[in-house]
Amino acid sequence: MSLFVTFEGVEGAGKTTQIVRLATRLRSMGRQDILVTREPGDGALCRELRQLVLDPPVGVSVDERAELFIMLADRSQHVAHTIRPHLDHGGVVLCDRYADSSMAYQGYGRGLDRDAIASMNQFATGGLTPHRTLLFDIDPGVGLTRQTHRTRMEGEAIAFHTRIRDGFQQMAAAEPDRFRIIDASLPPDNVYDLVWGAVQDLLGDAE
Amino acid sequence: MSLFVTFEGVEGAGKTTQIVRLATRLRSMGRQDILVTREPGDGALCRELRQLVLDPPVGVSVDERAELFIMLADRSQHVAHTIRPHLDHGGVVLCDRYADSSMAYQGYGRGLDRDAIASMNQFATGGLTPHRTLLFDIDPGVGLTRQTHRTRMEGEAIAFHTRIRDGFQQMAAAEPDRFRIIDASLPPDNVYDLVWGAVQDLLGDAE
Repeated sequence: MSLFVTFEGVEGAGKTTQIVRLATRLRSMGRQDILVTREPGDGALCRELRQLVLDPPVGVSVDERAELFIMLADRSQHVAHTIRPHLDHGGVVLCDRYADSSMAYQGYGRGLDRDAIASMNQFATGGLTPHRTLLFDIDPGVGLTRQTHRTRMEGEAIAFHTRIRDGFQQMAAAEPDRFRIIDASLPPDNVYDLVWGAVQDLLGDAE
Repeated sequence: MSLFVTFEGVEGAGKTTQIVRLATRLRSMGRQDILVTREPGDGALCRELRQLVLDPPVGVSVDERAELFIMLADRSQHVAHTIRPHLDHGGVVLCDRYADSSMAYQGYGRGLDRDAIASMNQFATGGLTPHRTLLFDIDPGVGLTRQTHRTRMEGEAIAFHTRIRDGFQQMAAAEPDRFRIIDASLPPDNVYDLVWGAVQDLLGDAE
């Protein structure tokens, strides 16, 4: 059966490492159809879009609405050409950031209209919602110190990242069936146990 | 007083030439604050977006929703950084394509939801609507034979361009105060007379 799991949270929460570990464990259990991907930036068009929005040309200030629309362009392309085809073939998709990131960053973080963002996410994804979303929750001050390469987003003030964390927590509270909150301040092995526990009920015949 | 005029129509309708002529005439009348611009593609970020959507990387098929969102990203950036500041200083903006092109190309042409496009155009522009829109109307078969460099859009089937022309005509009929239809099949000097006649009532103290 197909399975779509997304990983969300502020910068430096350790999502990327944990996704790789989860994929490895699923493969060791015999599932070979596992796609590890991310937003923004998977595929030729999306790589260009990621570059534009995270490391724009020198001297260019990206309008916040333009930022949102570039993320939505990336998502539309990614869903149509990568995620949906993989799920349609019964595969597992583990995606680092998805629609909730636009709501958290551009909605809660930048203050753009959240109802509009919800509608536009719906339009971009054709309504494709993850079976499970793992929210890697950590104090943004701690998360940011873990990052080495800083993009435009990571260069924002701590207040911006705090609004994003609060937004993610509100979103998780509003959809408890889909979200699981992972305490990302714990040591990686403990975080990994939480990750595993947060998806086990979905694995069914994969186990 | 500020003045915002947009130029719309299918490919090869001769918009670009006529915009330059109109700008020259307005300057000769003493207006020096005239900005001639276009969508997509004005400014460093927008040039990159234009390239991505009209001449994407080899082998990349651009999803139609991604195409729409790239156009909306371009428009958001263009309005925020170029059009609105120029109008706020009392200038004249002559823009080759604007929000109506997204409705015509992605709505009528590609068949994406038109109510959604209207909402997203509103979001991208912050509600900034042209004082006048000149629709350069021409048989798409005639227009396309005038084009030398062909982008992705111009390579589409004639039925696509016919739907776009029909869409523009419906939009013009729905907003007769804003739109003027220009018969772009006429010789350039006659088209120019029509263009001039279609904006004269707006010029007021510019005359």
